[in-house]
Amino acid sequence: MRIALCQTNPVIGDIDGNKKVILDLYQKACDDKADIAIFPELSLLGYPPLDLVEKKEFREYVKKATAEIAAATIENTAIIFGSLHEDIDNVGTNLFNSAYFCEGGEVKLIQHKTLIPNYDVFDEMRYFEAAKDTAVIEYKGRKLGISICEDIWNDKDYWKVRLYPEDPIEKLIKKGADLLINISASPYSYGKRIEKEEMLSGLAKKYNSDLVYVNCAGAQTDLIFDGASMCFDRKGRLSAICNLYSEDYLVYNTESAAEEIHLIERAFCAEMHDALALGIKDYCRKPGFKKVLIGLSGGIDSAIVVYLAVKALGAENVNVVMMPSQYSSKGSIDDSVKLIENLKISAKTISVEPVFDAVTEALKPHFEGRPQDVTEENLQSRIRGLYLMAISNKFGYLLLTTGNKSEIATGYATLYGDMCGALAVIGDVYKTDIYRLAEYINRDSEIIPKEIIEKEPSAELRHNQKDSDSLPPYEVLDAILRMYLEENKESEEISAVTGDAQLTKKVLRLVDINEFKRKQAAPVLRISYKAFGYGRRFPIVQKWRNQ
Amino acid sequence: MRIALCQTNPVIGDIDGNKKVILDLYQKACDDKADIAIFPELSLLGYPPLDLVEKKEFREYVKKATAEIAAATIENTAIIFGSLHEDIDNVGTNLFNSAYFCEGGEVKLIQHKTLIPNYDVFDEMRYFEAAKDTAVIEYKGRKLGISICEDIWNDKDYWKVRLYPEDPIEKLIKKGADLLINISASPYSYGKRIEKEEMLSGLAKKYNSDLVYVNCAGAQTDLIFDGASMCFDRKGRLSAICNLYSEDYLVYNTESAAEEIHLIERAFCAEMHDALALGIKDYCRKPGFKKVLIGLSGGIDSAIVVYLAVKALGAENVNVVMMPSQYSSKGSIDDSVKLIENLKISAKTISVEPVFDAVTEALKPHFEGRPQDVTEENLQSRIRGLYLMAISNKFGYLLLTTGNKSEIATGYATLYGDMCGALAVIGDVYKTDIYRLAEYINRDSEIIPKEIIEKEPSAELRHNQKDSDSLPPYEVLDAILRMYLEENKESEEISAVTGDAQLTKKVLRLVDINEFKRKQAAPVLRISYKAFGYGRRFPIVQKWRNQ
Repeated sequence: MRIALCQTNPVIGDIDGNKKVILDLYQKACDDKADIAIFPELSLLGYPPLDLVEKKEFREYVKKATAEIAAATIENTAIIFGSLHEDIDNVGTNLFNSAYFCEGGEVKLIQHKTLIPNYDVFDEMRYFEAAKDTAVIEYKGRKLGISICEDIWNDKDYWKVRLYPEDPIEKLIKKGADLLINISASPYSYGKRIEKEEMLSGLAKKYNSDLVYVNCAGAQTDLIFDGASMCFDRKGRLSAICNLYSEDYLVYNTESAAEEIHLIERAFCAEMHDALALGIKDYCRKPGFKKVLIGLSGGIDSAIVVYLAVKALGAENVNVVMMPSQYSSKGSIDDSVKLIENLKISAKTISVEPVFDAVTEALKPHFEGRPQDVTEENLQSRIRGLYLMAISNKFGYLLLTTGNKSEIATGYATLYGDMCGALAVIGDVYKTDIYRLAEYINRDSEIIPKEIIEKEPSAELRHNQKDSDSLPPYEVLDAILRMYLEENKESEEISAVTGDAQLTKKVLRLVDINEFKRKQAAPVLRISYKAFGYGRRFPIVQKWRNQ
Repeated sequence: MRIALCQTNPVIGDIDGNKKVILDLYQKACDDKADIAIFPELSLLGYPPLDLVEKKEFREYVKKATAEIAAATIENTAIIFGSLHEDIDNVGTNLFNSAYFCEGGEVKLIQHKTLIPNYDVFDEMRYFEAAKDTAVIEYKGRKLGISICEDIWNDKDYWKVRLYPEDPIEKLIKKGADLLINISASPYSYGKRIEKEEMLSGLAKKYNSDLVYVNCAGAQTDLIFDGASMCFDRKGRLSAICNLYSEDYLVYNTESAAEEIHLIERAFCAEMHDALALGIKDYCRKPGFKKVLIGLSGGIDSAIVVYLAVKALGAENVNVVMMPSQYSSKGSIDDSVKLIENLKISAKTISVEPVFDAVTEALKPHFEGRPQDVTEENLQSRIRGLYLMAISNKFGYLLLTTGNKSEIATGYATLYGDMCGALAVIGDVYKTDIYRLAEYINRDSEIIPKEIIEKEPSAELRHNQKDSDSLPPYEVLDAILRMYLEENKESEEISAVTGDAQLTKKVLRLVDINEFKRKQAAPVLRISYKAFGYGRRFPIVQKWRNQ
């Protein structure tokens, strides 16, 4: 069977646009004499559509487009694509996340999703009911077992702890399926692709079944989809794989012997680099922004964001502003200039001082007798935010924010200051990984000036300030944060590793009490198993760990 | 049976504090010779605990406290309180939202919640599994049917459209329950109390059963719980009700005839007033803030927020700042001064102009040849944000933000400007309702100066600016927003009411494209069926309604 894997990058809610992409690629598959063209989960809507599906007008628009796609199919080239299905019995949401199998102008099967994920960034139980059953469809001598994303992630031989009692894949096999097809919208986090390959390979082998997995590519606000649609033969060998981090189209023949493919997840920095660049690109491209703006401090974080923006959008679309204050070291400016020259981007320089002086003068009568404190530090950061937002407003540039995960975790950032911006590009990257990323970027030649990499981290908001004045060394901090945030470890377990219960407790408390800042933070591009944002939900007013 | 209704206001995560409140009130119930003391849903944890329950350390702490409460019970005075239960079978979350029935030092029954809400502000399927069964417990000659919140909201005779196929209350009745007990943490929105009374009354009558409903009181960040725990006799008559918007303790005797109570939801303004004041109070009190700060513009929104803050915290804890610019009318200052005198609060005045001049001077070389536009308007708003945050930082005052629902909906607010603040007090109140609230506040004497109420709404960010320059009249705008946001109506339906399809489309599009601002907004105190924030989830990058 000749299968066209259609790895698309839908725009959420752009039903007309997504439909056009589907129909165009389907036409290509027909021209290529494919037996079947397969598109990702909810490929007509974009994933995740969230509360859009609660709008009747939206559902009706989707329904109409779904019928149009079905009507456009010819005989001998079937299509599988993801869309909604509504089945009103006045109990529950009456909505399903479904795979449509169409051929010869007709819908031949609608398979609903059985396992509805509702953890981390997934909120699907809010919208979708579970399929009551699964069906196998016979097509050109093969028995197709169609499933949707989560459906295939619950094999009892693979998982020690399972989220659901049912296994729709096992059911499909029992019903005779010999070609498993899974359509997905599976957001990337580091390590997931290798796990996916292992898990899917195991299933193909266990069930002696061909297996075709079609994922989407592209970024949807904070979520990054890495594509990498895969085909496995009956021995569980990975026989074909689509592009990483971009749309792709590939015809796979289940009957031709293919060479086994290895090594599908690269080193962390390479994956992170491509994922973040894609995140910037789609965040700008989809709503129609061309140019971005970044405040360049002379530190490594903003340097990395500028570099990634250049990768994503081209140097001509990246604008930076340097905003030195009395506390900025000469190095900060020189190093920034070097980076600007390396990347050939346009830059402005605006001094913080005149406005800082005007603000302190205005506040003087009210602050009399009070010593300088964090107020004045925040003020500098906020004046920079003021400048950046003014330039963003005046020129229509999208402001990118440059805080890293270690900072956002501990609240070492100024709300309405350096937290200003539409997208937190490296908000899911620990400071220690920022250094790794810089090394990766410089692997062939020095793009990020070594002075930027080598200097001691500092917010430069007071004389001779260093990050290490307020925070433990980043190696220690990040190790604690990683255990706490991603591995969901507890304070005792973490203390056992750090050997410092007091420090551990201090860091965990910092994370907990800074929830109010994160509530007002820009969306964070997600590359880890647990990013700040939609997938992590903590109460703001709460006293756990404060007692 | 003598039942002590213990309407508590837990602090989320403060297990020790909540345990003490429970044990103290239980002791009081023992002293009062109550047969049973009943506490709200998850009363030991505070509701909603969100991702805290994913922490093993947290669960273990809760488990220990749960056992301590059980151990402290004596014979003849039982307790029912809400806590977690963990049952590890390696499938699903292994966690339950449970009611503990304890007496004589022992746990006699753990009834898990059957219906797990997962819509609007509820995310419980993320955390909790559904009870597999319900049990009736015999106690002092009565058969108690215990349920938790949502369990009681699915009666097929009451609801035309149901969210769940099961009905745990019907099951309890079939098992012989003659005293229905429901423990809740049911967030308030206007109209819900009267509906609740009707629904519960109907159940008591239909099943010829006593019914005791115990809700919590207090605010948890954005969610406001109105208390109003209720008792119904077998004829469905409301026989007792606890305080609105505050903790309460009440002993109800099922055997004594009580007079029927009527009228339990007051006029919208009275409810809104009390709800918002409680929201401010608990947002400050629970984390330990004493004083708040508000920017006073001379407009009605900030006037109302200042008034509510005074109601919640006392005049001595409310500080305001007036920040006139060249565009501020003389009236704005005079009217603000009048309000300040009426409320006896402390005020500062700081002019925007010197800083505005310094910023425009600093940006001049970069803005050359560009006309003035919204940039300069935003700048003024952001300078005010800068001042307010500096004062907030310097004095440890919590900054309240003053945007109303109409503004937040349409994006008629400046990100990092007037949107600065820890809590959006009136972010769920339409502009037209703000006027109603002002009238209510002034019902006995003029507290909000009539000049503030009568002036035409203006952001005063440019010469002679009026809100009506950019927005339709608020009566029209709010009618559209209400249909769109709360009634989930569609553009065609709304156009049919407004008679202006173009205007309707414009407003709906404004709501949709301003999601990025709301992502970074302060938590909004929720008083309507659909508030901005946790209960409304839209993709930021999306093209629906943009095509």
